[in-house]
Amino acid sequence: MKIGIFDSGVGGLSVYKIVKKHFPKCDYIYFADTAHLPYGEKTKKTIISYTKRILHFLLKKKCNVIICACNTASSVAVPYLRKGCPVPLYDVITPVVKKVKNSKKIAIIGTKLTIKSSAYLKKIRKINPKARIFAMPTPLFVPLIEEGWTKTEVLKKVIQIYLKKLKNWNPDTLILGCTHYPVIKNQIQSFLGKKTQLIGSEAIVDDIKISSLQKKGKTLFFVSDDPKHFRKIARKIFNVNTGRVKLCTEFL
Amino acid sequence: MKIGIFDSGVGGLSVYKIVKKHFPKCDYIYFADTAHLPYGEKTKKTIISYTKRILHFLLKKKCNVIICACNTASSVAVPYLRKGCPVPLYDVITPVVKKVKNSKKIAIIGTKLTIKSSAYLKKIRKINPKARIFAMPTPLFVPLIEEGWTKTEVLKKVIQIYLKKLKNWNPDTLILGCTHYPVIKNQIQSFLGKKTQLIGSEAIVDDIKISSLQKKGKTLFFVSDDPKHFRKIARKIFNVNTGRVKLCTEFL
Repeated sequence: MKIGIFDSGVGGLSVYKIVKKHFPKCDYIYFADTAHLPYGEKTKKTIISYTKRILHFLLKKKCNVIICACNTASSVAVPYLRKGCPVPLYDVITPVVKKVKNSKKIAIIGTKLTIKSSAYLKKIRKINPKARIFAMPTPLFVPLIEEGWTKTEVLKKVIQIYLKKLKNWNPDTLILGCTHYPVIKNQIQSFLGKKTQLIGSEAIVDDIKISSLQKKGKTLFFVSDDPKHFRKIARKIFNVNTGRVKLCTEFL
Repeated sequence: MKIGIFDSGVGGLSVYKIVKKHFPKCDYIYFADTAHLPYGEKTKKTIISYTKRILHFLLKKKCNVIICACNTASSVAVPYLRKGCPVPLYDVITPVVKKVKNSKKIAIIGTKLTIKSSAYLKKIRKINPKARIFAMPTPLFVPLIEEGWTKTEVLKKVIQIYLKKLKNWNPDTLILGCTHYPVIKNQIQSFLGKKTQLIGSEAIVDDIKISSLQKKGKTLFFVSDDPKHFRKIARKIFNVNTGRVKLCTEFL
């Protein structure tokens, strides 16, 4: 059993880590589209074009299951990619939405495009039409996380500025609608207090049904640009030791 | 006389504004490679591949002069692009370097790739070998500027953290090695004090020698993704009213 996971960059490693923990006997291919990152502020059409090529790549690598570990791509591209995809293709939004079906006041944070697409909002409305929803983009979190400033006063201040209104609104649930955000989950939780439950893309493990007869799985990492930087930041921020990262030049 | 100016995004508008002010009778084509931005953390090979296509596009549009208004691309791609380019191709680094030929202690800030490429450093060494040089990446400035947080306490704090060492080093000159940075020039100047002279890509106007017999010039704006966002941010941050921005889909 081979699981393909893709994202625009390192963010999807938070999904990879939790999926691998639950299914350690599978093989993994992780693809980061670093030549085109970030996806968060590009258009739908562009994201579809980029991710189509990634899907093709992962299918050629014989993945039996594919996970789109990017919220932006899950929002705007997965519904299109699923058409004609011969293997199960999971997105990171659907499993999160299932988790909030009983929540009453749901806040959502993410990149500009994820929020603008209303992907969470539309899906929540379908299974939880009475919930009140508050969605807002928080675009500075990703650069701050990638700069490694997760324990700084600056991040604290940015959290305060972005989430002040949201805190006053007093949600019972906050969706971390970006795969980078679990890295600063504690900082967000401590600002909002314990009354708000934080849910992120780790919810995906409850959705995936797979079994593998292998004893142990291995993982290959591919990027469309700068393997060195990917390896460095994967270790620094996500504590993932990637070993060799292969560069695919066909994505330029 | 038609001048082509390109950048990965809106940053080059700071160059466009000053060039247009000096040469108002020329026609302009501004191209922003928004499908691939930001350039600052991608590899040299990737940037060369992206900018080759842009050069081809501007030549097809019959530009007589081309300005690479992106520091990252000026650092890593322009030397390659110049080979075989049938019109003058200006970068934003050379004119800045000429301005610091008598400085003694020169600090440089920019994106990770600009700093890593040592493009400023190498060029300065050639004409001012005795100068002491201190170069550092300041990658959070661009997202903060693009978020419009130019007058916030957060930016003040980030300036302090990034530039504290640099201030203590007491440079006579600071090169703003990124076209976004002129937007926060005053904030940087007020932190460093008046003893440090700030020089940015506006220096380019002293290098360009052109004359035009037209009465008045017009400008066309092209992007490789999301014209709406470009138009909005051009007005909000650079105070440039672009009018219609055309989308070129051939860059995906």
